[in-house]
Amino acid sequence: MVKSTTGVFKLKPHHGGISVPDIEASIAWYQNMLGFTVIKRMNIDAIPAKIAFMKHGNFCIELFEVPGASSLPECRRNPNEDLKVHGNKHIAFTVENIYQVIAILKKRGVDIAMELTEIGPGEWACFIRDNAGNLIELMSPW
Amino acid sequence: MVKSTTGVFKLKPHHGGISVPDIEASIAWYQNMLGFTVIKRMNIDAIPAKIAFMKHGNFCIELFEVPGASSLPECRRNPNEDLKVHGNKHIAFTVENIYQVIAILKKRGVDIAMELTEIGPGEWACFIRDNAGNLIELMSPW
Repeated sequence: MVKSTTGVFKLKPHHGGISVPDIEASIAWYQNMLGFTVIKRMNIDAIPAKIAFMKHGNFCIELFEVPGASSLPECRRNPNEDLKVHGNKHIAFTVENIYQVIAILKKRGVDIAMELTEIGPGEWACFIRDNAGNLIELMSPW
Repeated sequence: MVKSTTGVFKLKPHHGGISVPDIEASIAWYQNMLGFTVIKRMNIDAIPAKIAFMKHGNFCIELFEVPGASSLPECRRNPNEDLKVHGNKHIAFTVENIYQVIAILKKRGVDIAMELTEIGPGEWACFIRDNAGNLIELMSPW
């Protein structure tokens, strides 16, 4: 590939797209567990899919419910196993106080996929699963 | 699930994780095509994986190269087909001038998975594939 030195542009992360079996159950989970709020619902008949955008801060999750879609492959429920198939894998968020956030989420009954682990000097990460088994990484420092 | 009204916390998007067959080829693509810069490299022997964090603005891509990992499932190369298997699917970015950005990317030889489409009044989206076939959505307005 020839590296172009012209045409610099900015990218702003907007959303992570997730295909789920039950959009109402997923809306409830992202709202009650992580504090996302529904900002838009739509249908795309060409897929076909029911869609909901949920926002937290400046970032959204886009949930898709597609009739007849196949189940989440079992390997996708485990962070290290998930990496053994190529593809887009997970979204990671930083939080201000990871110990406090994990404590809050555990009180809410969160499903932990990887307990809090020191991944570098003063750097911590853990993985949780949403209600449908999809991995989400939480990290600190903020 | 009992909705907890306590324990509000903020989430800041940090990165999207992608498992790729050739980390050096992917680093070159994300640098030359989208302007990401490598900020950290590491190995995690427990997976095992070679890892590179690449940054653009305040957001990173985390690339993983895992020896012996399986190929990207063919359905993951097409945005609508990808949604027919549950799971984390794609990351979307907004850009300031999507027509200009698409023109720049086409000059650089980008692989278009879905041409620019009006998804709502004044709202545009397209999908590109990275060098390994992973979908990335680009949207406007900014």
